[in-house]
Amino acid sequence: MTASTALHLSPTERVAAAYRRIAEVNRPEVWITLRPEAEVAADAAAVERDLAAGAALPLAGTVVAVKDNIDVAGLPTTAGCPEFAYTPDVSAAAVQRLVAAGAVVLGKTNLDQFATGLVGTRSPYGAVRNALYPDLVSGGSSSGSAVAVALGLADIGVGTDTAGSGRVPAALHGIVGIKATLGIIPAHGVVPACVDYDAVTVFAADLDRAVAAAAVMAGPEARDPRSRAWPADVRLAAPQRPRLAVPRATELTALDPSYREAFARTVAALADSGIDTGEVDISGLLAAAELLYDGAIVAERYAAVGAFLDTAPAGADPTVAAIIGAARATTGPGFVRDLDALAKARAAALALLAGFDGLLLPTTTEHPSIAAVQADPTGINRRMGTYTNFCNLLDMAAVAVPGAPTADGAPFGVMVVAPAFADQVAVDLAARLTGSESPALVEQGVELAVFGAHLRGQPLHWQLEQIGARYAGEIHTTDAYRLTALDTVPPKPGLVRHGAGLGAPILGELFRVSPAGLGGFLAALPAPMALTSIELADGRSVIGFACTFDAAQAATDITAFGGWKAFLQNRN
Amino acid sequence: MTASTALHLSPTERVAAAYRRIAEVNRPEVWITLRPEAEVAADAAAVERDLAAGAALPLAGTVVAVKDNIDVAGLPTTAGCPEFAYTPDVSAAAVQRLVAAGAVVLGKTNLDQFATGLVGTRSPYGAVRNALYPDLVSGGSSSGSAVAVALGLADIGVGTDTAGSGRVPAALHGIVGIKATLGIIPAHGVVPACVDYDAVTVFAADLDRAVAAAAVMAGPEARDPRSRAWPADVRLAAPQRPRLAVPRATELTALDPSYREAFARTVAALADSGIDTGEVDISGLLAAAELLYDGAIVAERYAAVGAFLDTAPAGADPTVAAIIGAARATTGPGFVRDLDALAKARAAALALLAGFDGLLLPTTTEHPSIAAVQADPTGINRRMGTYTNFCNLLDMAAVAVPGAPTADGAPFGVMVVAPAFADQVAVDLAARLTGSESPALVEQGVELAVFGAHLRGQPLHWQLEQIGARYAGEIHTTDAYRLTALDTVPPKPGLVRHGAGLGAPILGELFRVSPAGLGGFLAALPAPMALTSIELADGRSVIGFACTFDAAQAATDITAFGGWKAFLQNRN
Repeated sequence: MTASTALHLSPTERVAAAYRRIAEVNRPEVWITLRPEAEVAADAAAVERDLAAGAALPLAGTVVAVKDNIDVAGLPTTAGCPEFAYTPDVSAAAVQRLVAAGAVVLGKTNLDQFATGLVGTRSPYGAVRNALYPDLVSGGSSSGSAVAVALGLADIGVGTDTAGSGRVPAALHGIVGIKATLGIIPAHGVVPACVDYDAVTVFAADLDRAVAAAAVMAGPEARDPRSRAWPADVRLAAPQRPRLAVPRATELTALDPSYREAFARTVAALADSGIDTGEVDISGLLAAAELLYDGAIVAERYAAVGAFLDTAPAGADPTVAAIIGAARATTGPGFVRDLDALAKARAAALALLAGFDGLLLPTTTEHPSIAAVQADPTGINRRMGTYTNFCNLLDMAAVAVPGAPTADGAPFGVMVVAPAFADQVAVDLAARLTGSESPALVEQGVELAVFGAHLRGQPLHWQLEQIGARYAGEIHTTDAYRLTALDTVPPKPGLVRHGAGLGAPILGELFRVSPAGLGGFLAALPAPMALTSIELADGRSVIGFACTFDAAQAATDITAFGGWKAFLQNRN
Repeated sequence: MTASTALHLSPTERVAAAYRRIAEVNRPEVWITLRPEAEVAADAAAVERDLAAGAALPLAGTVVAVKDNIDVAGLPTTAGCPEFAYTPDVSAAAVQRLVAAGAVVLGKTNLDQFATGLVGTRSPYGAVRNALYPDLVSGGSSSGSAVAVALGLADIGVGTDTAGSGRVPAALHGIVGIKATLGIIPAHGVVPACVDYDAVTVFAADLDRAVAAAAVMAGPEARDPRSRAWPADVRLAAPQRPRLAVPRATELTALDPSYREAFARTVAALADSGIDTGEVDISGLLAAAELLYDGAIVAERYAAVGAFLDTAPAGADPTVAAIIGAARATTGPGFVRDLDALAKARAAALALLAGFDGLLLPTTTEHPSIAAVQADPTGINRRMGTYTNFCNLLDMAAVAVPGAPTADGAPFGVMVVAPAFADQVAVDLAARLTGSESPALVEQGVELAVFGAHLRGQPLHWQLEQIGARYAGEIHTTDAYRLTALDTVPPKPGLVRHGAGLGAPILGELFRVSPAGLGGFLAALPAPMALTSIELADGRSVIGFACTFDAAQAATDITAFGGWKAFLQNRN
């Protein structure tokens, strides 16, 4: 079974299929705790009852694998270390939201211990083998959740990402990984790796499903003090002709040759996707990345679990214990100096990406074997984080999707990176790369109906792009409106309300814009245009265009055309 | 001379008066570097030439004293330690902005060394005596800048504030101190105390002048990586009937009895100023405050100047050197744990103040003598920061103004504290306390003209309050408009544009609102109301109310009344 067929199953059918597939693939190392099928089936039956009672459950029929550093009520949380285990009474907020939307949890997945690693081999529960190439690593630290998705065991894998743990395993499996802006998906109920830089993430086989889950998980949470809301000027779409920054060739030398070649082909194909590119110097980003382990920031990991590891538990992974133990020696002033370097790097990164809608990077550098990583437990891991490590440190969002496969047909992953809160822009760009429709991640804003020069393809449409407006479809007014041609430059129509039955349904387009975007749009609106509440044929009322009384009186009635584009095409 | 008469002088007259006054008061310890009068007079003459050439210089005729941890090009920056001195080629961004607005710099002022202290005694350049009571402390660390203002030497004192240094000296002199949200006034060109928690501040004799200077100094700055812009939903005014949180009596026990009594009288008078109050539990704020020196956060001070102090310069203040030297021993994990405590305290503070427009606190606890502080160099200082220390740690803004004087007639200071970016709300509340008109600090937003139910005193005016709209005066339209009475609940007028000369000037009110506020207002606007560009009698065009065509046609013409309130009063 594939993930996409799973959506056509009922919740109980989906659960049964998941357990059949779990038995079939025989990958016990994926799970630290797999729930008994009967329990999960009972959850699915409850979802079906709720659906039958009329509940709106957007994730009904979705089965979820949860990384074992994220609490699920009643299941032990080990964070990959048996001695660390505790059993929470309350699920993590992000898990609660998935379950409230109709998803059911299959169990808890294996990980690089304490989410420290990008390889998937650092676990006393066993190295997690790659879903496609069992001798190769799965990527980590969210190894089990990614493999569960790649094998079709789960539709959604919930992970975490501090250094790249929600993206590297996606790259090594040809699946999607979404690491939203820090604070957007609450980290309540998560064992911290670096409490100031941890993001809860989503894996799925395709962007649509990943975004649907992320949208459910996103939003302010009182129990997470680092929780953040989308700002009032949040961008809700990438422009029609976006501009992606790409690194210079000299900053791609860390890549395995097969990946370097695949990245070049991915970049070369961007023009076909209607994306312009420009090279930027990412050396500042790569330098900031090194602060995550080579500086004092690793003190965050010691603050989280250092005292526990100091008790020398038998299940401690020696590599993880060595990395975290070394952080005991970091100093307060050293930490402050690294924070200062990050503050400067953050400002520089924003300046670097000004004029771009995002930055395209390879997700990781190579796909090593498990044996190679076990022989060199830190060197390869470190290189694999070259392009992911900076992202949370510099407060940026990333969407990891498949790029062009390697010449051998192996998966190769790329990331669209964007400044904090530009997550929807990153999702839209990722959709261009994968050739899919872009789903809505940021589900807020104000609807705005346009009928003339702001329609797609018309001369003022760029004003909507500039405020990050998101196209939401064609609409018709009720028959209370007449359309007129105003005497303006550029030519514009005036939509004039005469009253029920005194006009005709007029064709327009609906957009969703941020509150600040709408306010700025209105502030720049020239006479005689106005914005008012417009009745739509579907019964809703939305904000849309009108014009002043005198302009309406002086204008030419063009209601018979039914819309502005029809008038423009047929007026002669 | 007083500060307020100084504004009536020409720039060169003001400079001459300043130097006469400097000689007269004989307070050499105020200055570390006082510029030669001839140089400053030449600057003032240049300002006069610029004025004559038509330059708009809002601070022309203003003389400024700059704390000596802030760069002024060509003058040494000592930060209160002679061996630390360097002479910058470039002024701090905040100073550049003051000078660009016509202010002239008199010199550099004494401070608690490395801005570490709240007393004004920790300087090898001498303890700065209080302007009013020379045996008592001036407060610190911005001691010289505050005394220069209090003595009328300078109109504006520029300071810095990490623990309260821009507020405590204001309290001890009965003047105003503005500590804006971190990042609003750039810290470029400032010797860091705690680089993540340092604010550049303003002292002035009255709120008007302090805010005028702060408004000039505010705004994004590329050279400061921690610089922040006002957000798109910034509040531009306090409501008509604001609500101030006040601490419980049990949290005021640190206050000297004379201050406790003055604070009680200040709170009791709030109702007369039209301010409602409610008690809150500020113990979380006071606990967070202790992290500034008692935890690992003091590592910030070591990171700034610790290596320098480790060279044991002769001019090091022993108290300051001991505090900063001790921070050498802070650990990275300890710092992370304190950051975590701050993140939690910040979220709790926002929750605490939800439903309030601000928090009123005493600025400091007592007014000790210089001798007492020298006998106990840390105990008194620590107590004096009880109510100020948390503010930057928790990302809040504060405006320090005089409260009710003590029974003996001595100054007693209070602060209006507000969440990040609510600076204008804090200024408005401070103006209520001081009984003055509130000046505009946040000079941005969109103008919105209203003509009916949103006028002050009318039933929908609360909608403007809710979006933080700021009243900007009465306006009249051109004579292109007719006013109509619509058939709505509540009753509303429709302003209808008929064309030049076809109507009459209609009276309305102008407000300034944030872009997000305007967008949200529009999104909630019910039919048949509309917003459009309105021509004002003064030649400007602003966004303002209109209504739909059908509503205008059906409405009753009331143009003859000239405005909605006149119609309401006279319609019978």
